Amino acid sequence: MSKGASISGFPEWLPTERVVEQRVIDTLRRVFELNGFIGIETRAVEAGASLLKKGETSKEIYLLSRLQEVGHESDTPLDERLGLHFDLTVPLSRYVVEHSGQLVFPFKRWQIQKVWRGERPQEGRFREFVQADIDVVGNGELPEHYEVELPLVMVRALEALRDFGLPKATVHANNRRLSEGFYRGLGLEDIEGVLREIDKLDKIGADEVARLLVETCGANEDQSRACLELADLSAANGAELAERFDALCARHGIARESEAYALAHQGLETLSMIIDEAARIRPGSVIADLKIARGLDYYTGSVYETFLEGAQSLGSICSGGRYDDLASQGSKRYPGVGLSIGLSRLVSYMLHTAGATASRVSPAAVLVAVWDEADREGSNRIAETLRQRGIAADVAPTAAKLGKQIRYASRLGVPYVWFPAQAVDDGSAQGVDEVKNIVTGDQEAADCKSWEPDTVYARQTIGLKAE
Amino acid sequence: MSKGASISGFPEWLPTERVVEQRVIDTLRRVFELNGFIGIETRAVEAGASLLKKGETSKEIYLLSRLQEVGHESDTPLDERLGLHFDLTVPLSRYVVEHSGQLVFPFKRWQIQKVWRGERPQEGRFREFVQADIDVVGNGELPEHYEVELPLVMVRALEALRDFGLPKATVHANNRRLSEGFYRGLGLEDIEGVLREIDKLDKIGADEVARLLVETCGANEDQSRACLELADLSAANGAELAERFDALCARHGIARESEAYALAHQGLETLSMIIDEAARIRPGSVIADLKIARGLDYYTGSVYETFLEGAQSLGSICSGGRYDDLASQGSKRYPGVGLSIGLSRLVSYMLHTAGATASRVSPAAVLVAVWDEADREGSNRIAETLRQRGIAADVAPTAAKLGKQIRYASRLGVPYVWFPAQAVDDGSAQGVDEVKNIVTGDQEAADCKSWEPDTVYARQTIGLKAE
Repeated sequence: MSKGASISGFPEWLPTERVVEQRVIDTLRRVFELNGFIGIETRAVEAGASLLKKGETSKEIYLLSRLQEVGHESDTPLDERLGLHFDLTVPLSRYVVEHSGQLVFPFKRWQIQKVWRGERPQEGRFREFVQADIDVVGNGELPEHYEVELPLVMVRALEALRDFGLPKATVHANNRRLSEGFYRGLGLEDIEGVLREIDKLDKIGADEVARLLVETCGANEDQSRACLELADLSAANGAELAERFDALCARHGIARESEAYALAHQGLETLSMIIDEAARIRPGSVIADLKIARGLDYYTGSVYETFLEGAQSLGSICSGGRYDDLASQGSKRYPGVGLSIGLSRLVSYMLHTAGATASRVSPAAVLVAVWDEADREGSNRIAETLRQRGIAADVAPTAAKLGKQIRYASRLGVPYVWFPAQAVDDGSAQGVDEVKNIVTGDQEAADCKSWEPDTVYARQTIGLKAE
Repeated sequence: MSKGASISGFPEWLPTERVVEQRVIDTLRRVFELNGFIGIETRAVEAGASLLKKGETSKEIYLLSRLQEVGHESDTPLDERLGLHFDLTVPLSRYVVEHSGQLVFPFKRWQIQKVWRGERPQEGRFREFVQADIDVVGNGELPEHYEVELPLVMVRALEALRDFGLPKATVHANNRRLSEGFYRGLGLEDIEGVLREIDKLDKIGADEVARLLVETCGANEDQSRACLELADLSAANGAELAERFDALCARHGIARESEAYALAHQGLETLSMIIDEAARIRPGSVIADLKIARGLDYYTGSVYETFLEGAQSLGSICSGGRYDDLASQGSKRYPGVGLSIGLSRLVSYMLHTAGATASRVSPAAVLVAVWDEADREGSNRIAETLRQRGIAADVAPTAAKLGKQIRYASRLGVPYVWFPAQAVDDGSAQGVDEVKNIVTGDQEAADCKSWEPDTVYARQTIGLKAE
């Protein structure tokens, strides 16, 4: 990213970097479509009323005003003002309700779009960035199997990015019902508060969270310690998870007959199903992690965060969960489950830490040289013939000295320079076209109607910088 | 577009419509890249200072404010506030100046992105829409040949959309210098005013424009008539254009030795070059049209508008021109030439007038049936095998009755339903997988490791609704 970027938090890629981002987007789209997800795009703005409704990010929205309204913004109530969406889940739920009559349910959609968050400028925080989401939304009900299938689609999508330098990704799953049931079983009531503090574990550590649970959530020392024990619980499979959870409940006096335990057990069963199914299909790709809380978001069941091997400090690069109450219309409910990749941060990591780099900045495989401005038409014709055969081609900007034309190709990373045939001096014969690979130095006679670039030079590719 | 769309001017496509838009975007990108244009994406926001600088659309910007600033918006001067970009040319010029050290010039870029205009809600006017732009920007200078090459790239791009119902497109070209020189030769001084009124010709007619030229631009009857005669001038080629222009000058007493004539002649030469070159390469694709004015935009030389055969009322669907003064940095200038397709309006026309329609809403070619929830794992495995072979596949949401599963596929437009082999009752043998084309009714035994869909059903395609 350019250091000169003049507005903090609004990243902008240089052309070579954009090649990587574009390839990441194309790759994700391909995986999503292979899995039967339907692409949509929602408008960038939503009414204040729906932006301010849910989720912790709603306090970071950007509101819009027309130039003509400057100074009179306050005449319009916040609910009626327009704002930029801060994620793609709130717009999806609005879209589903608005167009429900014209959608097929369960509605599986992918969506890759910019979102905006009006945060204070802060190192490493983007205020404009791209998210890549998949969700499945049901009409009235939504089968549980999607709660394991969706994280697995994301696992496959992230695997497809490993060629571009992405480390192995692991989805960490938890379930809100499990946490809530356990906290209620302990006698705690400020469930949102506890989730909010537990969410800080990776950032501030166990001691500090324990202190906050006591100070702000009305927990005593025992309750606080029990919450941390739950967060720390791990297991190799569903059966072990159930066993250890039950032991924990017994230790803290949560009765099996209690409503709280029943709630926790609902969550436990779903979580066990997820990790066992995932282990069967992709061992090690989805694990139980009972400290995943997802702060104040709109999730009601499964929650997911995804971490990259060796890049723990990056935080979760793909998060989501199940939401049963986000969208409704009268008595109709539209429960959903989905995950969202923070694509801009991921691309930033791939570029600046993993060293992903484009083989060339120009999509052109060939630059056709121009001997003389009077011959430009001939060069254009050669380029056009190549293009009609699917070979991207550019033409030299001016009939400069050949060295300068080759340098132009070289700076753009264009691997081939095409030399149109020149009339031989005595006029008795025409020369033939030649094409030079300026990377290898090979030069050969060529006919634009049949010549093909070597596979390795035909298209832009993404590689990794030598260490 | 959904009739329920609740915010006027912010269009949103249904999933089947989005398939068409996505295909249009993919097609334009392919043509742009074949021609060596480099894709970039700029941030959606710019500083007020650069948005308010140029062009008639700058009065329609949307300004942003963070939720925390509501009520205190006026504390920040307009120049320092952030606003959404209203086109992709102003951001390009800022991008070029900001990153000039890291770009290769001439810089050929394509960019397909949303833009926003805070207009009053009005029938058929979008306040959020997608533009598809190509531009070439030079460092210091920019060869004139790009002024014919860029409209020709757009002609090819629009031709590639004819399969999806787009009528033949013709680029109408003019030149600001030609107009300005002529008006000055007549003794007129309010050049911007005259251009603004001439721009209204198609909308309000010659009589009304004549009246406005007199009333608001200080023209007398003769001058006003001369302006309309220029707007009406047409020619089959450059030589004829020059001849008729000279006759017009002579009739209105514009001396060949005057500075005004010299300026007009500069423009005339460029325009003649454009129409002669274009006629040689694509006859009928680019014509001279001396009433093209492009209002108060930032163009300094060539200007273009593009009209569709039989869709005159749609107005120009692809406009642009040459701008020599948009971007500069100290003594450095970055002249450019570019054109912009109003993609959302174009897609709206293709969908609602031309009848473009997607063969199916789901990208999946196959829906794998599920006999029993206990067998879901087997169905998932079949789908995954197909996907690994590049065949998009979905799995039935529930183990409902087969008729219901087939109906789900049918409503999504998925052409094939896959029936996994079932254990035969006596356990002595396994059945075999079968696949049914639910469009033709054909059903055959199939192996997911080798089966291929018929080409015609393999991918989403765009067709035209029967008249």
